Amino acid sequence: MALIVQKYGGTSVGDIERIKNVASRVVQTYNRGNDVVVVVSAMSGETDRLINLARQMTPSPSEREYDVLVSTGEQVSVALLSMALHNIGVDAVSFLGHQVKIFTDSAFSKARITKIETEELQKALRERKIAIVAGFQGVDEDNNITTLGRGGSDTTAVALAAALNAEVCEIYTDVEGVYTTDPAICPDARKLKKISYDEMLEMASLGAKVLQTRSVEFAKKYGVRVLVLSSFSQNPGTLVTKEDEEMEQVVVSGVTYNKNEAKVTIIKVPDKPGTASKVFGPISEANIVVDMIIQNASEDGSTDLTFTVPETDLKKALEIVKKTARDIGAKDVAVDENIAKISIVGVGMRSHAGVASKMFRVLSDEGINIMMISTSEIKISCVINSKYTELAVRVLHKAFELDKIEVTEE
Amino acid sequence: MALIVQKYGGTSVGDIERIKNVASRVVQTYNRGNDVVVVVSAMSGETDRLINLARQMTPSPSEREYDVLVSTGEQVSVALLSMALHNIGVDAVSFLGHQVKIFTDSAFSKARITKIETEELQKALRERKIAIVAGFQGVDEDNNITTLGRGGSDTTAVALAAALNAEVCEIYTDVEGVYTTDPAICPDARKLKKISYDEMLEMASLGAKVLQTRSVEFAKKYGVRVLVLSSFSQNPGTLVTKEDEEMEQVVVSGVTYNKNEAKVTIIKVPDKPGTASKVFGPISEANIVVDMIIQNASEDGSTDLTFTVPETDLKKALEIVKKTARDIGAKDVAVDENIAKISIVGVGMRSHAGVASKMFRVLSDEGINIMMISTSEIKISCVINSKYTELAVRVLHKAFELDKIEVTEE
Repeated sequence: MALIVQKYGGTSVGDIERIKNVASRVVQTYNRGNDVVVVVSAMSGETDRLINLARQMTPSPSEREYDVLVSTGEQVSVALLSMALHNIGVDAVSFLGHQVKIFTDSAFSKARITKIETEELQKALRERKIAIVAGFQGVDEDNNITTLGRGGSDTTAVALAAALNAEVCEIYTDVEGVYTTDPAICPDARKLKKISYDEMLEMASLGAKVLQTRSVEFAKKYGVRVLVLSSFSQNPGTLVTKEDEEMEQVVVSGVTYNKNEAKVTIIKVPDKPGTASKVFGPISEANIVVDMIIQNASEDGSTDLTFTVPETDLKKALEIVKKTARDIGAKDVAVDENIAKISIVGVGMRSHAGVASKMFRVLSDEGINIMMISTSEIKISCVINSKYTELAVRVLHKAFELDKIEVTEE
Repeated sequence: MALIVQKYGGTSVGDIERIKNVASRVVQTYNRGNDVVVVVSAMSGETDRLINLARQMTPSPSEREYDVLVSTGEQVSVALLSMALHNIGVDAVSFLGHQVKIFTDSAFSKARITKIETEELQKALRERKIAIVAGFQGVDEDNNITTLGRGGSDTTAVALAAALNAEVCEIYTDVEGVYTTDPAICPDARKLKKISYDEMLEMASLGAKVLQTRSVEFAKKYGVRVLVLSSFSQNPGTLVTKEDEEMEQVVVSGVTYNKNEAKVTIIKVPDKPGTASKVFGPISEANIVVDMIIQNASEDGSTDLTFTVPETDLKKALEIVKKTARDIGAKDVAVDENIAKISIVGVGMRSHAGVASKMFRVLSDEGINIMMISTSEIKISCVINSKYTELAVRVLHKAFELDKIEVTEE
């Protein structure tokens, strides 16, 4: 008998039959005597349909109204799931962001949760009702509707689990858990039994699409145990939790890749103090997230400055960078979209030497040129030509013996 | 310079292009210096799509969740219209029921407005913003979402016009105004320049689909001038307003028909005191609205009790009535679904004699048998066999010289 938060993503509630399937899963947990709070996303395709309506209307919709529009997707889902539960005789009640209330700042379409009032939810749970909460949405202090950005329902679920002090936050999705790498390009990929918050954060931000990064940050901050599992099977999933000794035994837990970045090089930048801030200030003001940055000083007093940005922001970034390049007297700006970032992640790196050099050697043995390198305490990333992505993932997966990792029993 | 409330129905906002068309109409009014509050319905087809989702889920959805579901239709419309206005450089802000706030009772799916707070709307208007309000929806005292029933956006508009003391409430629809009868079955139908609240009420409840009955009651109660006009033309519409002398000159203003009722007869009811309440009590408790009632006393101490109910409620009504018939010792229950109610409406009837007998004679001259009759101060209704509907409408329209009525210039 515990309080459990469950989150079901868009494919899990993709049609009426699937919503009924979710309802019966929820009831299984409820009938074991647990209190259950369920967070749901919009039915798959629905958010895209709504975004498409906005795009048909205008290329740059008002952000406030955009959130009013897209938040309807989750509203439809909570109503339908609540109906499905009533239909099998279980008392349930739906909550929208403003009904819970889930307060956020006013950064429309990428708002951050600032406070959650749990009084109404607690009241429903005391009455043995299942509480169905619309993911992805909140309200700011002026009662404007806000949304948390794509994948924000994960964050809603983890934040609710934290606010309600839930035993676990179960994230139901269309994959069975967190894998050592993408099974689609590496048949030897294994499902992890558990993974630390920090590893999951690196995996999430590096392109593994299982959990939204912010939700993992939230889980780490409040110590929420997150279980990632499939809504289409009964197999055990992957637990995202605090680091423990067992995890540290493993040097590398996963290999990830990201093909959605582009590389920008400003050629022959005069090497003066303050240049970097002149380049990256305007980019950051335009809300573009720069990932890796490399600066190669040369002998003639100038330098080449290379960095990566999300491909979707490339056009905007280039406009800004070309202007800056003129202002600071750089020679030219070059772009390479055919890149991929390959990363290995593992908390074991902290206590194991030689991991980086092994990674470089493995890639080099395959004739793969490394364009950029960046490292953190538990991660090493290399930018390579994107045509080698699958090859690099497979050889690294094998070299670090991820195909031999202990897996969950099914 | 006035405060004007405009309401656009589902066909007027049926797609992106039409919403843009609405935006430019709204701006015309705004640019004349008026403050504008716009109420919109869901895009045509959207409410049906949502209702269909609910029906796929369960034959009897939770009423609370049903309202959560269907209210998303209007939410989509307000966001898109607001975007369309921003797109042409006009400041606009959308309001949902809970943001205005529009308070209602808790009768989900047929809630009644109890109170409207206008503070937030007034604030937006003072800032010269166009306020876009979601029709059809409100919140009860516990912040549950409610809806006002089909066509409820008309009521939202009129109620807002009353609360804001607007100069006029313009209802934009897909017809050009209120006609003397349905132009689809009577080519001689004329568009009325104006019509009294009472006449409009009779017309609305008798089957003319221009305005929701409740919105007209609201308009009458608060003296709101309602202008019905088309969003697809620039032609003047029909003003629904207080009765005046000019209107009283006209004996009959309109001929209406309603084919959506069924006739139920309880045969040989023992003629005892309290029988009527035994019959109609349970029907009314089931929220079925009985329209006409006729009782024919016969000589053997029993009576035939005939009444009409909406066809959609017939099944439910019959279950109840058959049980009651057994309890009170009636002989049988008979049903006729092939009926139509034909009515003539006009405030001039109050001061003109012989209108009823003329109506009966006109029908009789065509060999149309009258099954039931009911009258009010400004209306006479006859139930006939539905196959004569169009014929009856045309001969009455001609007999009362509605084809010669003074019309709006276009």
